[in-house]
This record gives sequence, C-alpha cells and structure tokens, in this order.
Amino acid sequence: MKQWSKYFFMISAILALAVAPGELTPLYGEEAPPEGVAPSDDDEAFKAEYEVMVAEHGFHAYAFDFFVTSMLWTVIAAGLVFLMHLGFATLETGLTRQKNAVNVLFKNVFIISIGILTYAACGFYIHYPGDWLIPSVFGFGGPIGDLNLTEGFTFGYGGLELAMTGYGDFIFQAMFAATAATIVSGAVAERIKLSSFMVFTLLLVALAYPLAGSWHWGGGFLAELPTGAFYDFAGSSAVHGFGGFAALGAVIVLGARRGKYLRGGKMRPIPGHNLPLATIGVFLLWFGWFGFNGGSVLSAEPQALGQVFTTTAMSASMGAIAAMLTSWILLKKPDITMALNGVLAGLVGITAGADAVGPWAAVFIGLVSGVIVVFAIIGFDKVRIDDPVGAISVHGVCGIWGTVIIGVLSPEISFVSQVIGTVAFCGFAFVFALVLALALKVLIGFRVSEEEEDEGLDLSEHGQEAYPDFGKVTG
Amino acid sequence: MKQWSKYFFMISAILALAVAPGELTPLYGEEAPPEGVAPSDDDEAFKAEYEVMVAEHGFHAYAFDFFVTSMLWTVIAAGLVFLMHLGFATLETGLTRQKNAVNVLFKNVFIISIGILTYAACGFYIHYPGDWLIPSVFGFGGPIGDLNLTEGFTFGYGGLELAMTGYGDFIFQAMFAATAATIVSGAVAERIKLSSFMVFTLLLVALAYPLAGSWHWGGGFLAELPTGAFYDFAGSSAVHGFGGFAALGAVIVLGARRGKYLRGGKMRPIPGHNLPLATIGVFLLWFGWFGFNGGSVLSAEPQALGQVFTTTAMSASMGAIAAMLTSWILLKKPDITMALNGVLAGLVGITAGADAVGPWAAVFIGLVSGVIVVFAIIGFDKVRIDDPVGAISVHGVCGIWGTVIIGVLSPEISFVSQVIGTVAFCGFAFVFALVLALALKVLIGFRVSEEEEDEGLDLSEHGQEAYPDFGKVTG
Amino acid sequence: MKQWSKYFFMISAILALAVAPGELTPLYGEEAPPEGVAPSDDDEAFKAEYEVMVAEHGFHAYAFDFFVTSMLWTVIAAGLVFLMHLGFATLETGLTRQKNAVNVLFKNVFIISIGILTYAACGFYIHYPGDWLIPSVFGFGGPIGDLNLTEGFTFGYGGLELAMTGYGDFIFQAMFAATAATIVSGAVAERIKLSSFMVFTLLLVALAYPLAGSWHWGGGFLAELPTGAFYDFAGSSAVHGFGGFAALGAVIVLGARRGKYLRGGKMRPIPGHNLPLATIGVFLLWFGWFGFNGGSVLSAEPQALGQVFTTTAMSASMGAIAAMLTSWILLKKPDITMALNGVLAGLVGITAGADAVGPWAAVFIGLVSGVIVVFAIIGFDKVRIDDPVGAISVHGVCGIWGTVIIGVLSPEISFVSQVIGTVAFCGFAFVFALVLALALKVLIGFRVSEEEEDEGLDLSEHGQEAYPDFGKVTG
Repeated sequence: MKQWSKYFFMISAILALAVAPGELTPLYGEEAPPEGVAPSDDDEAFKAEYEVMVAEHGFHAYAFDFFVTSMLWTVIAAGLVFLMHLGFATLETGLTRQKNAVNVLFKNVFIISIGILTYAACGFYIHYPGDWLIPSVFGFGGPIGDLNLTEGFTFGYGGLELAMTGYGDFIFQAMFAATAATIVSGAVAERIKLSSFMVFTLLLVALAYPLAGSWHWGGGFLAELPTGAFYDFAGSSAVHGFGGFAALGAVIVLGARRGKYLRGGKMRPIPGHNLPLATIGVFLLWFGWFGFNGGSVLSAEPQALGQVFTTTAMSASMGAIAAMLTSWILLKKPDITMALNGVLAGLVGITAGADAVGPWAAVFIGLVSGVIVVFAIIGFDKVRIDDPVGAISVHGVCGIWGTVIIGVLSPEISFVSQVIGTVAFCGFAFVFALVLALALKVLIGFRVSEEEEDEGLDLSEHGQEAYPDFGKVTG
Repeated sequence: MKQWSKYFFMISAILALAVAPGELTPLYGEEAPPEGVAPSDDDEAFKAEYEVMVAEHGFHAYAFDFFVTSMLWTVIAAGLVFLMHLGFATLETGLTRQKNAVNVLFKNVFIISIGILTYAACGFYIHYPGDWLIPSVFGFGGPIGDLNLTEGFTFGYGGLELAMTGYGDFIFQAMFAATAATIVSGAVAERIKLSSFMVFTLLLVALAYPLAGSWHWGGGFLAELPTGAFYDFAGSSAVHGFGGFAALGAVIVLGARRGKYLRGGKMRPIPGHNLPLATIGVFLLWFGWFGFNGGSVLSAEPQALGQVFTTTAMSASMGAIAAMLTSWILLKKPDITMALNGVLAGLVGITAGADAVGPWAAVFIGLVSGVIVVFAIIGFDKVRIDDPVGAISVHGVCGIWGTVIIGVLSPEISFVSQVIGTVAFCGFAFVFALVLALALKVLIGFRVSEEEEDEGLDLSEHGQEAYPDFGKVTG
Repeated sequence: MKQWSKYFFMISAILALAVAPGELTPLYGEEAPPEGVAPSDDDEAFKAEYEVMVAEHGFHAYAFDFFVTSMLWTVIAAGLVFLMHLGFATLETGLTRQKNAVNVLFKNVFIISIGILTYAACGFYIHYPGDWLIPSVFGFGGPIGDLNLTEGFTFGYGGLELAMTGYGDFIFQAMFAATAATIVSGAVAERIKLSSFMVFTLLLVALAYPLAGSWHWGGGFLAELPTGAFYDFAGSSAVHGFGGFAALGAVIVLGARRGKYLRGGKMRPIPGHNLPLATIGVFLLWFGWFGFNGGSVLSAEPQALGQVFTTTAMSASMGAIAAMLTSWILLKKPDITMALNGVLAGLVGITAGADAVGPWAAVFIGLVSGVIVVFAIIGFDKVRIDDPVGAISVHGVCGIWGTVIIGVLSPEISFVSQVIGTVAFCGFAFVFALVLALALKVLIGFRVSEEEEDEGLDLSEHGQEAYPDFGKVTG
C-alpha cells in the first residue's frame, strides 16, 4: 500500500509543481486587468468600455448583459453539478453495507478531487482539442493556463452561444468529468481494492472520458457523421452511458460480492445499510441535475432554460412513479430503492433530449425509463452481474434508451447517428474499463482478499469504522 | 394492494400517453426556433432582434436583460423549492420512529413526483384559469402544452412583473404544489395506509390546492374582495395554512398513534429516531425558503430581493431563539425539536408579508411565531390531536398568524380581508381533507391495522428496513 | 439554567420590541415605492426610468442590468453561505460522540440564528462603521434600519463595485458573521457548558468579529498600512484565522475532554460517531464555499467569477489528495477524516487569494494546506490541545498560511502587511476568547461537571437523545 501512496505523491507533486512555477505569478500580478473589461463605478471607464462594445459588436450592452447573466448561471450550474457528487456519495453509501461505508465515502472524496485536478492537467484539452493528433478521434493540448488572459475580450471566448469565460467553461466541464468514475464506484463497491480503484479512476477520468467526449462535444467524428450529427444534449450517452458501461467492464473482471449468488441459481439480497442516506442522495442528484441539464444550455437563454427544467423534472417524476408501480406489481411491495432508481432512470433518460422534447414526451421518456430500470436491475441479477447500487441499469441502460429515443421522436435527429454514437460511447467505455481492469488485476490485484471482504473494507483498508460510537448513548 | 397499483398504473399510463401523442413532436422538430428569439452569436440576427425590441417596446435591451436575469432566478428558485422536499423528507423521517422511516421516505418521493405530474396534467390551469367555470371560484383548462411556442415573443408571457417564460412560471409553481401534501404527510405519519395516502395526496394536490389557490393568485374572489384584495405574498395561508389544516382534517379522521395517549389523561412522548436527520431537514427547508419567498418576487427586482432574503432570515432566526427560550422555560430544558420547529414557525410566519415589512417587524413576527408554536404543539397534545412532527402547529397556526398580522402592521392591507382569506384557505382545506379522509376510510380504509402499526409500516407496507445492516461492523 | 434563559428572553424581547415600533410601518406602507426604481411592465414608467438613468449615469441600461445580475448573485451567494452552517452542523456532529450530538446540533441552530440577529442589531455598523469612535479601530452605528429607503436610487448604494442593495450587502455579510462562532463550536464540543457557550457566541459574533473585521473590510487601519493595504479576499484571516484562534483561546481555558490524554504521554483517540454525516458536512461546506468566495467578488463580474470558482475547486481538490497521501504515509492507512480536513484546509487556504492567483498557484496553496493540516492536527494532539474536529488546524493554521503566502506569490501584495494583518486578526481573536472564557469560567462556569460530561451533554443539558429509537426495527 505504502508503495503506491509514494507513487501517487510523486505524481501529484509533479503535477502541481512542474506546471506551477510559470503560473505562480498571479493573474493581475504584473499588469492591471485588461482595459475595458472589468466593470468599475467610474463613469468614464464605463463609457469607454461601452464605446468599445459598440464599435466592436455593433450594439453591445444587450450582448454584454446577456453574457454576464449567462456566465453567472454557468458557475452556479457548476456548483450544482458539484453537489451531485455528494448525492452519489450518500446514495452509494446508503445502498451498501455499513462495514464498507468509510471506503465508499473515501472513494467519493477522491473521485471529485482527482477528477478536477486531472481535468485541468490534461482532460480539458483532450475533451476540446485545439489540434487533433488523430483527426476527429484524439487530440491533446496540455494543462490549462490562465483562461482569462488568453482569451482576451470577455466574451471573445465563446460568444453568446457558449456564453461564458474560459474558466466558466472549464469548471462546469470539470464537474462533469468525475461523474463517469463515480458511476463506476457504486457498481464496484464492497470488494474493489482501494489503490487499484484509484489508478482506475485516474485513467478513466484523465484520459478515457475526455477522449470519448471529444468525438461529440469536442467536434470529433460523431459531430460529423454522414447520417447527421449525433445529438446528446447533456450526456445520456457521453456521460451516463459511458459511466454505466465502464462499470459493466469493471464488474465483469471483478466478480460478484461473496455470498451474493448461491449455488443452484439462488440469490441472496444484500440490502444497503442506510436508506435515509440513499434518499438524501437521490434528492441531491435530482437537484444537481437541474444544473447538469440546465447548465448544458450553455447560456441563460430563457426559453431553453424553462423547457429544460420542466422536461427534467417531469421525466424524473414519471420515472419514480413508473418504478414504484412496476416494482409493486413485480415484487408485490412498493420498493423504496426501486423508486429511488426510478427517479435516476428518468433523469438519465431525459438528459440526451431535455432541450429537444416537450413536457409530455419527457413524461413518456421517464415512464419507459422507470419501467426498464426495474427489469434491468432484476435482469442483471439473474445473469449474476453484481451491481450493488444498480448503476449499470440506471446509467448504462437508461442512457442508451434516452439517447436512442430522441432519434425516433425528433425528425431533426438521425436515429442511425444516435445508434452509432451510443455504441461508440458505451462500447469504448466497456472495452477501456475491461482492459484496464484486467491489467490492474494482473499487475497489482483488482480485488481485496476474501478475509478483507468479510471483515469489511473500512477496517481492512482504512482502519476506521463509519459509526464507531453507535449505541453508546452515554459513557 | 395490487389492485390499487393497477389503477394507479392505468391512470398514469393514460395521463402520459393520452396527452403525449400530440406532443411527441419535439419543440423545434419541424421548424426552426422562432426568429429573433433565441440568442445566437450572429451579429445580424442580434441586430434584427434588437430592432424588433425597440420597435415593439420602445427601448428594449434593458427590458430584455432584466427579463433574462429574472427568468434565471425563477428556475433557480424552483430548484430551491424542490430541495425543500428533501428538507421535508428528512425532517419527517428524523422525527418519526425507525420502524416507519422507509414509509416516510417513500411517501415523500411519491409526493413530489405526483405533485409535478398532476400540476402539469390539470393543476396549473386550475390554479390560473383562463376561463372560470364558476366565476371567481373554479376554472379548468386542461393539461399544459408547449409553454414556449404558445406564448410567442419571449417576454410576451408575463412582461416584467411576471418576468419568466411559461415554463418558468409552470415549474416554479409546480414545486410549490406538492408542499401542501407533504405537510399532511408528516402529521399522518406512522399509521396511515399507504394506498389511501397516495389517493389522498393525488386529489389534494391535483384539485384542492390549485382550486383554492385560484381564489387569490389566480385572480379569483379573494383578489376582488370589497374590503380590499387579500394579501399573501408567498403563501402563509395559501400554502402553509392550507397544508396545516388539511393535516388537521386528516388527523381527526385518522386518530392518534397507538400508545400515544394513555388513560387518565396521561401522554407518552414518542421521540423521533434521528435528530441529526431532522436538523438537516430544517436547515434545508430554511435554505429552500429563500427560493420559496425570494422566487415569489417573480422577477430579479433588486430591492425586493434583498428585502425578502433579509426578512425571511431574521424571522427564522428570531423564531428559533424564541422557541428555544420558551421551551427552556416551559420544559426546563432547551429542546432541539422545539428549536427546529421555531425556525420553521418563523419561516411560515414571514411568508405572507416578506416583501411588505421591514427587518424588525420580521423579528417581531418571528418572535411571536416561535412562542406560539411551542404552546400550539403542547396544546394539540393536550386535546389529543396526535401530530408526530408538529406540522399543524407550524404550518397551520403560524400560517394564520403570519397572514393576519400583516393586516395589522400594514396600513395598505385590510385586516378584514386577511381574516376572510385565512378562513377561506384553512376552512376549505380542513373540510376537503375531512370529507376525503372519511370517504377513503369507508371505501378502502384510511389506517393500517393494529398489527401493522405495531410492526411498523416499513415491514408491513414495504417489506424493507431503513437500516437493515446496522451494528454489523464486520461480517 | 432557568435564570440564564430569562436573561436571554429579556434581551431578545428588548432587541425585538425596542427597535421594532418605528419599523412596524412596512416598507411601502405610506408611500408608493420610489419612482423610477421598481420595474413595471408599463412602458411609460420604464421610459421615464430609463431617461433618469441616462441623465444621471450617462449610459445606463448596461449598468442597471449588470447591477441586477450582480445583486441576484449576492443573495444566492448569501444562501450558499447559509448552507455552510448546515455543513458545519453535520461535520461537527459527525466528528463527535453520539452522546453529545443533540448538543452540537442545538448549538449550531443557535449560532446561525443569534449571528444574524446580532449582526442586524449592532454587528453590521460595527463592521462597516459610518463614524469611528476610535479612529480606524472601532466604530458603532446602531441597528440596521430600512436599507432600501435610506439608500435612495437602486444602485446608489455601492455602485458597480459593490453591486448590491443595502439589504443584499447586509444579508451576505450576516451569513459570514456566525462562521467565526461555529468554528469555535467544533473545537469546544463535548464539554462546554451550554449557557456559557451561548454567551460566548453572542459576544464573539456581536462584537469581536465585526470589530476586527472593520480593521480591514470596514476601511480601518489594516486598509491603510504604510506597507500597503492588507489583502484578504474572502477572509482566510478575517474569518477563518479569527475563528480558529478564538477556538484556541477557548480550548486552552476549557481543557481536554476527559479520558483523551492519559498518563505517561499516551493519547486515546476519540473517534466521531457518524462519518457519513461528517462527509455530508464537508461536501456542503465545499458547495457553500463557492458562495463564500464567489460572492466576495461583490458583483457578477464574469472573469473574476470564473477564476474564483476554479481556484477554489482546485485548491480544495489538491488539499484532499495531499491530506490523503500525507495521512497514508504517516498513519499507514488512508484516513477519511484527514481527507475531509484536507478539503477544508484547501478551501481555507485559497480564501485569501482566490481572485489573485491562477489555477496552478491554487493547486500549490492547496497542496501545502493539505500537508500542514495533517501535521497540525497531530501536533496539537502532541501538546495536548484537544480539538475534536481539528478546527484550530483547519481554520487557524491554514488561515495563516493562505493569507501570508499571497504576500509571497503576488508582487502587488505586501508580505509585511500580510503578516501584520494575520497577527492582528489571530492575536485579537485569541486574546478576546481567552479573556472572555476566563471571565465566564469565574462568573458562571465554562465547563460541565465530570458527571455531566460522562453522561453526555444530550441527556444532561437537553434531556434528549439523538437516536432514541435506534435498533427498534419493530414494536
């Protein structure tokens, strides 16, 4: 263990220090902020700025204010997507056993942290390549620099369609990046070796996610398909399908938790230890999804914003109701964990087309999502794919559904392109994860020992208990 | 149980599919977005839009940008009100017993989901009727359609006083709608039959809440009282009083939890099982209330926004301190649940006049709210009205207080009108809930059996435990 | 106890009622809102307002819309900082023992409530004095009045550099004020007497924090140092250093928890009772910190906003990774509580210069923060300073680090001034807390009895348990 920690320390230290020196001079260190950009209450400065705007853009204030409002929304949306990581942390912890709670929490703190750092170190410019190394497939542009200075005039960065500064663009996308890894985290919980998971996460987030993302959002081959551009508004496939199928690849290598599948085709349910915590997680994910989908408008355009909030909420609601009823019929009892996964299914399903469908089409997407997620969870258990939180069903299966269905519903979106894009994301994620997991299995081991698994990862990996003091009311 | 689930499934399926076909064509499916609305970075398009604005509105950009910022606030506020439902879920779960935790969580996932769906299916156009069927009392306009296309030019929907698009208006109000039902949920917890509660909620949210709401916010008779318009800024009566008195009606039919009230006038306290969870709930409710009250400004008007945030925070703060001290004096110990209910009391109290009073009047409203909530909770227990979370006291009693007091404090608001409005909301909610609860009692039963209540609703209704694994540190 | 509660009640009642009468006339009670301020959809009114703007400000709409957007951000940021108090509440509760959980929660509800009220009663005008009583050191201006009316034209309050209304300024700063006390709360947990803590908090928040704050943000002597103005963007020293060293002063008087430090230099670890709760706390603090730092831009200026969100996230991320690795090396196991404190260390560290450094300098600041917080926590334990949650290390030590380092990194900021400012804040907080704690110790006792400590503060102070029902699945 210690050995690995040294490697990590070295890598991190290099990451921080090698790139840092050139940047240690703070932004406004040697020169004042660029003229005519930062508002001040000096009327003269304002007038000058105004005239620059009029001269350069023809009509000005309108555009500038729309930009300011849009950029505000971008950073708020980034905050909301950040909060989804608390949602994932609590959902995964709640749906797994007490003896592994610390481990799940630790992994989630690690994922968001390493996700942001690696996205800055290389992910951002792999995701949005300046130059392609392999045209339309892979590009690389190094770590981010000063994203204010390099872009010049405030809204020179993305104009009014990507109405944000460079840092706004970066931080919003950085919050997305770790999502793929956190989806995997839930599926592999309770038996994966911590150090292997950390390496797996690092490579998935730093390389695989932005690489695949560049095919679509980065202007790669999926944006240029002869059948028409692949459409995936906020990432049903590019984020959730990717994460779900990366999880599938990892889980196949990893195997099921001990005692989950018994001889003779029998299955032992392993319920999570804290359902209020899981419920907190799902509500926070829903809340954060307003930033995930809403922020993907990439501006504060009022019509799109209202529509996206509405379709997102309606699909999630119908997903919940549909999963409640489906589980009630199939399992004879209304199941809270199915209801929770129904919410998430509806959210994943609507993510590809939240801006492209009306409210009742969103209800339809959510309805089907909520039904199939229940069947998928039961189905994966039947084929002995052990996914403690249902991540593969929620993100993988419903990610495909959401992406493909808008190729049917919308006459402007090619069904064929949707299928191609979905296969590309899910297939690549699956293969990448499978190969990486196999490599880690051979090199350093991918799974804890049977003793460690029985003892629980909290004690074996961390030497800590999640609730060490419980039951001790006094004394 | 299974029978009911079938009905629900049918209703939901009809809801989704009957309305869906006409809407399955996505918004921008066959034609491009309306010209001159969606911003683009094309200077020519912008100039054209700008000229349209100038021609139609005389002076333009100012109005448009104010509209964009306001609409952004509307959807963010909708998100905050959504988060209040997590607040309610955790508060109610924390203040009830462990054996009913799953049931409380399940009900809360159901409430927000069905609330949003029914508000789209019929609530919105009952709440804001185009045509009255019974003038000033009841109107109905069917399900929502495409709220972008039908309203034409972006801020043609509500101008700058209701500065949002149609979808913005809908989603903000939809998040409010479920609140009434969630207030009831806490009061009837630990003994109500799940299927009956679901029907009760459906009818309360789909019909009763928007019907009553139309009297005031929909321009009905309370907006046209001869004594002057009834005033209720964000809904001390229209939402909280309504919910609190609906809860009272339901609780009277339902009866107290077994073992709560003993012979000889004695009372057994039944403490909640998780006070950290309840505290999380109250903080989240306070946080969400900034959207509840702040969003009710209906624009980003800066003076009103600052004032509403300030009065909301100060009333909540004083409510907390007042309830702490009152409970300390009455019960000899500073009681955390009373402190929490004091926060909520202050929030409910200020909701009717958050934009109409100054900071110290808000402190006065919060002070009285915090004192009366403690007496109300103790008082309801004395008359054997069993309300596990204090919802009737917090929302019902303090809702009345907050609504009526601004008729005293503000010379512009008629005291008589405030009394009429309060009676109308609370009286209607009480009678509606009472009658509906009695009908359900006769038709399908309103309460679980004694055995189920003793066993706990988690096992009897859901076959699940909230913390199945607790205490198992290893193994 | 009862005696104290009476005093509190009296003080609060006086606070509310003495000031209230003059304010009970609501804002728009006797006269209409000031002409030309509140938007309406009446074109004529708009045109008039527009002309006023042009006449007074020369070019107008641009400025007004920037102001509206900025003010929206201010109140949202205030909401986010409010949510940090839930973060502190859950973090502190999670890191302490079950038997004291109610007490920790109660204190946190008290802190935010009394913090807001006292900031309105006297803090705001001590923090930002109109007139100095002791020039550049201490001023006082009474309670807040109507901050809309007194400031006239909407953005006459602070122009476009402090782009908010009076109420916006107040509520954002009020949310900050209680932070100092909540930092102390964690460090003194599990053994402080409730009534003494309440008095301590009241005086710390009402007097000491705004007094020290006036030296810098209020334009006092730290803003006028001959070596150049002290720089502390959002309060690494002014808030966190202050809180951390106030905690140190209080802890020294209070002493360690019973059983923590044994004879012969041995130390018994006392783990917190609920690590998922603590993790929720840290994620919420990180989320809220986007408002803490982002709101300190004091407008929606897009370049600064994007930069501040980015540097804040990157320092927190690197702090987490650094603390994970440091604890892994030092303690042989990756420690979740160290990882959590690493996040907070990175956040505290970047707070002083979030707008003044680039992303990789932020990584450097976070890296060092994450390393030193681990050593500081272990170090304070070595010298038998018992801080259950590590508040002194996180807020005190990393607060100093963050403030001083930007004097090195930025050529525009004087290292000497940074040292002077840091010493002023931390020194004053330490001495104030030490003297106040000693006075309370002599007057009414600062610590509970040994019996009460062993029994736990929940039962001894509140007569309540945090989880009274736990383990009772049924019955």
